[in-house]
Amino acid sequence: MDKLHIIKIGGHVLDDDAAFEALLESLASINEPFILVHGGGKKASFVSSALGIEVKQTEGRRITDAATLEVVVMVYAGLINKKLTAGLQGRLVNAIGLSGADAKLMISKKRNQTVTDYGFVGDLEAKGVNTGFLNSLLQSGTTPVIAPITMDESGQLLNTNADTIATSIAVAMAATKKVNLHFCFEKEGVLNANSEAIRQINPQTYAELKSSGQISGGMIPKLDNAFAAINQGVAEVSILNAGKLLQKINQQANAGTLICAFPAPGGN
Amino acid sequence: MDKLHIIKIGGHVLDDDAAFEALLESLASINEPFILVHGGGKKASFVSSALGIEVKQTEGRRITDAATLEVVVMVYAGLINKKLTAGLQGRLVNAIGLSGADAKLMISKKRNQTVTDYGFVGDLEAKGVNTGFLNSLLQSGTTPVIAPITMDESGQLLNTNADTIATSIAVAMAATKKVNLHFCFEKEGVLNANSEAIRQINPQTYAELKSSGQISGGMIPKLDNAFAAINQGVAEVSILNAGKLLQKINQQANAGTLICAFPAPGGN
Repeated sequence: MDKLHIIKIGGHVLDDDAAFEALLESLASINEPFILVHGGGKKASFVSSALGIEVKQTEGRRITDAATLEVVVMVYAGLINKKLTAGLQGRLVNAIGLSGADAKLMISKKRNQTVTDYGFVGDLEAKGVNTGFLNSLLQSGTTPVIAPITMDESGQLLNTNADTIATSIAVAMAATKKVNLHFCFEKEGVLNANSEAIRQINPQTYAELKSSGQISGGMIPKLDNAFAAINQGVAEVSILNAGKLLQKINQQANAGTLICAFPAPGGN
Repeated sequence: MDKLHIIKIGGHVLDDDAAFEALLESLASINEPFILVHGGGKKASFVSSALGIEVKQTEGRRITDAATLEVVVMVYAGLINKKLTAGLQGRLVNAIGLSGADAKLMISKKRNQTVTDYGFVGDLEAKGVNTGFLNSLLQSGTTPVIAPITMDESGQLLNTNADTIATSIAVAMAATKKVNLHFCFEKEGVLNANSEAIRQINPQTYAELKSSGQISGGMIPKLDNAFAAINQGVAEVSILNAGKLLQKINQQANAGTLICAFPAPGGN
């Protein structure tokens, strides 16, 4: 099977000019096909605040009312998406920036409002990903750059978690390709008590790390996404520093935390 | 040759919710292939002002400094582009929203700063249009929705006049298709002294209308674009009210002002 990298880059890398340029250089040096999925960053909160829109959150999650949806569509699918796309084009990568509305790339469902109303938020599953379109782009040597905005069947734009998008795309593309999924952010990986990246995590060690409180907060949904991917046919999932991505892909160095479906033979 | 409509929609239609919905309904009812090119609208000035960015203009043209470029990329390539795309998708038109950076769709040149420095503004010619990509989208039944943001060879995003984009795309696509170019806005067409649409304008009547002062201001660059298109192989160019577009395309009614390369036999 052909190899494909799904690269998720998080907010912090997008907020810092030097990190952003370094990221573009890394991406332009990758010699294998990849799909880039990007998150949001702080700009959306900054623009919301300037427009007098109150940033509402519950349990660390942004509530997306109609005004906030306009802002995230502007900032994610507009500014960040096109800056990344143009930055790659300037480095001779034929990138194309896309949201879920474009060519029905990602059809999500508006989140059920049973407990909390998150507003215009969509949940994406692998079956909602237009793999035919992605494959046709990849076949023509075009690199998709994907914003965390999806659309439901009715044509409603929805704000969607970028980790979930990367996972759903990875799972969907794994049907026909050997997919490596990389969650890149500003830390070295999933960190232990000494702030060092844990080399490997399997379901057993994950349960232990959670129960001991070593893993908490935003890392838990990220790891849940990682295990969901590895359990649904994605060949390799890792969580790593964006600055180590190129070394990792070129197999020049170990980097970050590898997610494993089973305990390694002979223990972790 | 296959027929293709290039439809330019202007700012005012985008600023009014009812007009916006009506436009989407019209577009979804078109039974022939089309490419939509959209302008900006007032939202960019609103967002700029909220962000404390001074809106600088010279001779009615916005000067695009770095901060303003960020805003127009957000608003044009993000908000307006994705709202149009999702609105069409919700009406079963398989639309794809694109800027000039995406798949190298429109490679422009940063405007020469001989007299006035317009900042990050790009001029697009027909040769800068990626017709291969547009044709492949059209062949697969996908409708391009194009924002007035282009990119230069170095990967710099540039603000670009939407009328010029529509003209350049129409001319480029006319090499292989019978192209009808429609400039849609809030007026009935090019208006005479009685505020009625002038049925036809040819180069001779255009010169007369200009010298008599009946045509002035923003209508002159629009008509210059229209004549440039008709002189470079575009089959038909008209300037009309967005609300009359569907009737016009379905040839149910005369609408707006038709641009003609030569005086009609027997006079205008």
